[in-house]
Amino acid sequence: VTADPAADHPAANAADHPATLAEISPSVDDAVRAAVGAAPAFAATPAAQRRDALYACADALTRAGDELIAVASEETGLTTARLTGELARMTNQLRLLGDFVAAGRHQPGIASPGAAPDGSDLRLIAVPIGPVAVFPASNFPFAFGVFGGDTGSALAAGCPVVIKAHPAHPRTGRRLFEVGAPAFGPGVASMVEGGADVSIALVTAPGIRAVGFTGSYGGGRALIDAAATRNEPIPVYAEMGSLNPVFVLPGAADPANAGALAAAVTGSAGQLCTKPGLVFVPSDAMGFASELAREIAAADVHRMLTPGMADHHADWIAQASKRYDGVAVGTGDPQPVAVVVPAAALDEDPALLDEHFGPSTVIVTAEPAQYASIAARLPGQLTATMHATDADRPAVAALVPALIAIAGRVVYNGVPTGVAVTDAMQHGGPWPASSPSWSTSVGTESVHRFVRPVAIQGLPDGLLD
Amino acid sequence: VTADPAADHPAANAADHPATLAEISPSVDDAVRAAVGAAPAFAATPAAQRRDALYACADALTRAGDELIAVASEETGLTTARLTGELARMTNQLRLLGDFVAAGRHQPGIASPGAAPDGSDLRLIAVPIGPVAVFPASNFPFAFGVFGGDTGSALAAGCPVVIKAHPAHPRTGRRLFEVGAPAFGPGVASMVEGGADVSIALVTAPGIRAVGFTGSYGGGRALIDAAATRNEPIPVYAEMGSLNPVFVLPGAADPANAGALAAAVTGSAGQLCTKPGLVFVPSDAMGFASELAREIAAADVHRMLTPGMADHHADWIAQASKRYDGVAVGTGDPQPVAVVVPAAALDEDPALLDEHFGPSTVIVTAEPAQYASIAARLPGQLTATMHATDADRPAVAALVPALIAIAGRVVYNGVPTGVAVTDAMQHGGPWPASSPSWSTSVGTESVHRFVRPVAIQGLPDGLLD
Repeated sequence: VTADPAADHPAANAADHPATLAEISPSVDDAVRAAVGAAPAFAATPAAQRRDALYACADALTRAGDELIAVASEETGLTTARLTGELARMTNQLRLLGDFVAAGRHQPGIASPGAAPDGSDLRLIAVPIGPVAVFPASNFPFAFGVFGGDTGSALAAGCPVVIKAHPAHPRTGRRLFEVGAPAFGPGVASMVEGGADVSIALVTAPGIRAVGFTGSYGGGRALIDAAATRNEPIPVYAEMGSLNPVFVLPGAADPANAGALAAAVTGSAGQLCTKPGLVFVPSDAMGFASELAREIAAADVHRMLTPGMADHHADWIAQASKRYDGVAVGTGDPQPVAVVVPAAALDEDPALLDEHFGPSTVIVTAEPAQYASIAARLPGQLTATMHATDADRPAVAALVPALIAIAGRVVYNGVPTGVAVTDAMQHGGPWPASSPSWSTSVGTESVHRFVRPVAIQGLPDGLLD
Repeated sequence: VTADPAADHPAANAADHPATLAEISPSVDDAVRAAVGAAPAFAATPAAQRRDALYACADALTRAGDELIAVASEETGLTTARLTGELARMTNQLRLLGDFVAAGRHQPGIASPGAAPDGSDLRLIAVPIGPVAVFPASNFPFAFGVFGGDTGSALAAGCPVVIKAHPAHPRTGRRLFEVGAPAFGPGVASMVEGGADVSIALVTAPGIRAVGFTGSYGGGRALIDAAATRNEPIPVYAEMGSLNPVFVLPGAADPANAGALAAAVTGSAGQLCTKPGLVFVPSDAMGFASELAREIAAADVHRMLTPGMADHHADWIAQASKRYDGVAVGTGDPQPVAVVVPAAALDEDPALLDEHFGPSTVIVTAEPAQYASIAARLPGQLTATMHATDADRPAVAALVPALIAIAGRVVYNGVPTGVAVTDAMQHGGPWPASSPSWSTSVGTESVHRFVRPVAIQGLPDGLLD
């Protein structure tokens, strides 16, 4: 997910919405102090109690749904239909994460009876790591918002959270906090607002033990670098976006198949972290490339999240139009756009490999026999996709290891934009898609970011309950 | 584990043992290039084949055991008995890690059938992250050596390794490499030698994807900081030592019990990462404190690993003797030593909380009712131990959460120095014991440091084998 590069600038938060809620902390220090104070008791809560609190939070957010959707739609330009689905995803996610820990599924369940050198028993338990700073995304005001996946997985793990609301939609963030936070005890969920100075203060606060972030490469890297300078470095779990390459194999290069890909590029005005930003098409399938470009340019797209993002998208079109002939630009604001280039252009113009937020994609014509070697040179990705038929099986077999090597999710004959909130989801990948590459910010495995194992050796029964 | 602070200085490696083996790379660049070249094919090997190679390596090391033990004993001063046990630990560890991956136990085994938005199946697989740099320890020439746990877990995961031999025992490192490396294909296991410049070059080499390190805080921090400056930051799995506090509760403060603790302090000349460096004794149990101090001072200890470490230990005794009255110093080189101080000294003299390598401990007399609050103020630890009887159960119940919060392993009525190589071991803990706190460098869970999950969505059967 790419956030508005300007969004963390203090001026972006100088909105006419003063903080009127007592729950929103006036300072990072106060919020972190509250989280540190709440941590031991929250860590000691039975997981079932945390599940109940997550359910109560989800129920409250569901009840306030109409109001939340209206505010978010006004602030973000996202449609009511999209936000209705996203609100359900947010609340289901909170419940799923609560169920996960209540069932003890975050526990290693690993024991080595009698294995200690003195013959005593060893077993591993997972314990919460302590207060977590959460930086919600601009482009998912609910599912990656104030009570999105990072917040939900930290709370499920037993870690208090200090959430820095995203300045692109301040009223949405405040209402989410006001509605959802009372489900938790004092200090367990706090919220702060502000610009880059507040972000750095939060990440470097000694009481914070981990960070969850979804946003741009620049924003993520700034937090990672700040965390690295601490006396006690902490993990920054950052999801920083992706190009999500799609490799169309010859058997699937039928122009009739272009519609689903075009919709994945332009849906939500192309503001999804899993938008296909790079589509490889066989050199001899120009009909497919042309039809895909035409359908993208013809799409009807809604406004972008912020004026800053819209400006960046317009700049990207201007640059691409200057450099390349094969640029299909639609009408509207923003304009949907597809750029068609030969594979050699990727080497000549590395900017084509930068994430470009908005309803845009780069269609690369290439020899399918070169797909694997092209993939091997791409940066780390959240997803990599193949479109193929049975006739393409040998080519697919050759491509699969190359895609596994660069991506966190490998999709066959689907679009990468559908991210299931489930056990087997991996929403993360090699740098710069996420850091560290093993972490996921979606699905139940996300809880593991916020616990650590402790080996219990020789302890009599009944002392851990 | 604390390494000789001087050991990474280039001068420390200016030994009279020229690199005569073709397998030892003349440069970091060559070794990393070989590892990068070998990575895709090694990642594609069936886990059973990696197990077989690890077994072959272990068998070769076992066959060369007598020679390896003789060289290591000469270079390190460790006893033949200790090194005989450690060689078995090293080879069993390689086999255990091979068995672990051959059984597929590093695989998540998590599937979400039909869970993708288009109804297709999702499942998680673990894949190797790529070439790993390994920095063996000074104090375990075998178990944390050239083919120690970091190397073994990286190879088991399917990651080529570039090992920087520890300059404190160069001949041991070379023989280990010469004997063990041929079990693996070209480029899969490489070795380099040198000082701090070589260490930094290795950690910042673009082809390296993770680092395993066991040594001092200073050494670990230097690698962590270097890795953080990379264009693509990588995880540094660093085990940086620990004080391993022991809390003696009133029921267990019988002077007759002091012997096992004294032996844990002085065994291997106090050069274990899990040596009890801080022992809390009830204020009214001075008999126990005195007897423990007496037994430590009376111990017969062998020489330290390097002259530099011996000098540091002597300096520590000199400083402690200047500051405190209750210092029991034995005879020999090094001199075993116990310092007895009241709890208030920990606040007045933070240097007491620095790891002190060698046959030494700090005995702190304190009110048992204060143990939990004292523990809460300690830095992160590999281990925390309680000595208690049933009569102490209420005090133990109060102490357990405090110890879990600061340590990676909590031991009841044992000594922390026995580290079992098993499934339920956690050899790591909150900063500065290790980084990141969830990682372990011992036991089968260590493999997870070197894999990352990939979600496979909708892929037809038979394409991953």
